[in-house]
Amino acid sequence: MQKIGIGLAGLGTVGAGVYRHLLQNRLLLTERIGLELEVRRIAVRNVAQVRSVQPPQGILTEHWEALIVDPTVGIVVELIGGIDLPYELCRRALKARKPVVTGNKALLAEKGAEIFELAAEVGVPVFFEAAVAGGIPIIKSIREGFIGNHLQSIHAILNGTSNYILTRMTDAGMDFPEALREAQAGGYAEADPTLDINGWDAAHKAIILASLAYGFWVDTAHIYVEGVEKISAADIRFAENLGYRIKLVATIRADSNASIEVRVNPTLVPKGHVLASVNGVFNALMVRGDIVGDTLFYGRGAGQDPTASAVISDLAQAAIWIDSGGKAFGFTPHGLYGKCLPTEDLVSGFYLRLTVDDRPGVLAQIASILGSHDIGISSVIQPESHEEAAVPLVLMIHNAPFGRMKEAVEQMSELECVKSAPVLLWILS
Amino acid sequence: MQKIGIGLAGLGTVGAGVYRHLLQNRLLLTERIGLELEVRRIAVRNVAQVRSVQPPQGILTEHWEALIVDPTVGIVVELIGGIDLPYELCRRALKARKPVVTGNKALLAEKGAEIFELAAEVGVPVFFEAAVAGGIPIIKSIREGFIGNHLQSIHAILNGTSNYILTRMTDAGMDFPEALREAQAGGYAEADPTLDINGWDAAHKAIILASLAYGFWVDTAHIYVEGVEKISAADIRFAENLGYRIKLVATIRADSNASIEVRVNPTLVPKGHVLASVNGVFNALMVRGDIVGDTLFYGRGAGQDPTASAVISDLAQAAIWIDSGGKAFGFTPHGLYGKCLPTEDLVSGFYLRLTVDDRPGVLAQIASILGSHDIGISSVIQPESHEEAAVPLVLMIHNAPFGRMKEAVEQMSELECVKSAPVLLWILS
Repeated sequence: MQKIGIGLAGLGTVGAGVYRHLLQNRLLLTERIGLELEVRRIAVRNVAQVRSVQPPQGILTEHWEALIVDPTVGIVVELIGGIDLPYELCRRALKARKPVVTGNKALLAEKGAEIFELAAEVGVPVFFEAAVAGGIPIIKSIREGFIGNHLQSIHAILNGTSNYILTRMTDAGMDFPEALREAQAGGYAEADPTLDINGWDAAHKAIILASLAYGFWVDTAHIYVEGVEKISAADIRFAENLGYRIKLVATIRADSNASIEVRVNPTLVPKGHVLASVNGVFNALMVRGDIVGDTLFYGRGAGQDPTASAVISDLAQAAIWIDSGGKAFGFTPHGLYGKCLPTEDLVSGFYLRLTVDDRPGVLAQIASILGSHDIGISSVIQPESHEEAAVPLVLMIHNAPFGRMKEAVEQMSELECVKSAPVLLWILS
Repeated sequence: MQKIGIGLAGLGTVGAGVYRHLLQNRLLLTERIGLELEVRRIAVRNVAQVRSVQPPQGILTEHWEALIVDPTVGIVVELIGGIDLPYELCRRALKARKPVVTGNKALLAEKGAEIFELAAEVGVPVFFEAAVAGGIPIIKSIREGFIGNHLQSIHAILNGTSNYILTRMTDAGMDFPEALREAQAGGYAEADPTLDINGWDAAHKAIILASLAYGFWVDTAHIYVEGVEKISAADIRFAENLGYRIKLVATIRADSNASIEVRVNPTLVPKGHVLASVNGVFNALMVRGDIVGDTLFYGRGAGQDPTASAVISDLAQAAIWIDSGGKAFGFTPHGLYGKCLPTEDLVSGFYLRLTVDDRPGVLAQIASILGSHDIGISSVIQPESHEEAAVPLVLMIHNAPFGRMKEAVEQMSELECVKSAPVLLWILS
């Protein structure tokens, strides 16, 4: 039986999971693919470090170049994190005609265009199932399962940390800092949770999904990203009363002119919608294709084991590619779509919460600003308040372009009767 | 650009959908796979019949052998239905080294072993994404996405007609015949709904999933199948009061001795479980792998368009296979699992409803039969009744082997105080 050698760069959480499960389920995998996968080299920062897995000392190295030059390594797995070093590693592996498996979403979001251009040039595949939604086979499903479909939209919850925080704020009435502290204590948030809570972890994944769906590499500069840091317990309560739950949703969508919309932001999701029930650290994706209709995927979006499962699936496909001398899989650019809609033109319904003076004429001022921007109000709620000076005023806004909406909100915030920064949230559409 | 010719056998609902969408999304598909797919021959029963799609008359034929002998046909798509003729068509196509795409679940359930043996022998792939759960890419996900996982269990709702009927019985309080009539009037059930309501349509799909998951072709004789015909409105109400919804669930599971369990039967699903919320004609699959954990797939399980989406995905993969001279995908038999658990040994909790005389001592008789079979009761409910002669008695039973449970129920039904056939339902485990 043919043996295929693997070179692993990185032996952190995911790398150790891949190593362990490859050993544990070795027999099963060999039976299924008819090839034997063997880890031959592992590049780490410090070979002396104590680890949860103990590979034979001889295969550990502190030089990632060893994975490239070792002729017994057929597939390179990049699980280092960061951008510059992984980028260099991927380039060198592809040039050496070794397929690459990576779970590095930041790398693909920043350097995807360059990496896939090189992959196409040399005819060697790059696999990246582990980069989006952990063990859920969403990359394979979009790239192969829905290959005959124009993908009309993807709505997804892609960041477990944010979703955990929002779930605790909703279910336990916590405020943001308290929920974040709990998430960190429970291991659901990193010590530095910046990329999770500012929306950019989800945004990297959304860029990968959008690029696969629409055939051109989406630039980070062309998407709209907002995190969960500014969500307050009060907004969650008001949304609740209005029949919504607040989720950090990635919206990816094509309009009829082949322009696309990519954004990640806290979004009001109607309680009856399936995404409203996705709680805790779970991920979910609702994919709409012109032929297949709506399909939902749900599972753990991160963690050692689910991510290792995705890496191993890619390893099997890479091994089959080597064995069969097959076609290069990966990202196939095409010219059917080609630009992102400007953020200003994105259309949505909105939830607007203002803090205003409790006196006659205030609503008229607000409404007149909205009217002058041609923006319609679908309902107004003035919750009872016991503070005397300022009261909350919540407006539900009909579909309107984000740019016009922002202008109106800026104008409102200059009104004397508006007491603090307005809160503007998107409604799921 | 290389063109790959398709031979279509059958131009019914799904065949017409495939033809139409291949034309409509031709450009997209060509961009994505770098190959052009062209339907070159269509075999139908009657070329003169009026149809929703109008292929050029020259490509229609009444002789399916034309698909085999035509050298311009590279891939054969079998969408005829039935077993004998499709089986012959598949064999002939494989022997002519033409990859086969089929959506015929009955064919695979009955003849899968023979078909995949031949496919392995000649080294030509058979694709069958359309056979299970319509447009949900579950075959690809299990075969490739979870390739590194021992699949511990699959719980699935696989028959839209049964699920529609159960949903209407639950939500609108209909009885079975009324819900079936409504399903037929709405186009959610065939004129002859036998295979849908007796559980065998779902069973064919369960056999395919189990075979893929466990590496040996599961025999129809070794699985347990029960349909929804016997479910009464009363059972749905009682289940509701106990916190459950009744669903037709396919349970596929391996035990620690590498024996597997495959059954399809009406099952009590706790209301909090995600499968309890799958309503109407939708399908859902909850897959548990030893590495990936739980993953859920949800979508339309049937219908022209979702099924066509799956067929087109298989066509693309078959075309890539031809273009690259790749490895044969399909079903890979292996010897890690190898037998089905005998039905009698399947363990579950149960719901048992008896109709009994309303007099003292009855419960003692029932309980003593259960006790003598070493079967534990977790709760007893005797709903109030205004009939005098006989009253319902509902027992919730702790995990017990089905064989022992059946024996106990048979013994009970011989009791004088038991007035009509006992109703025994499985609880989701």
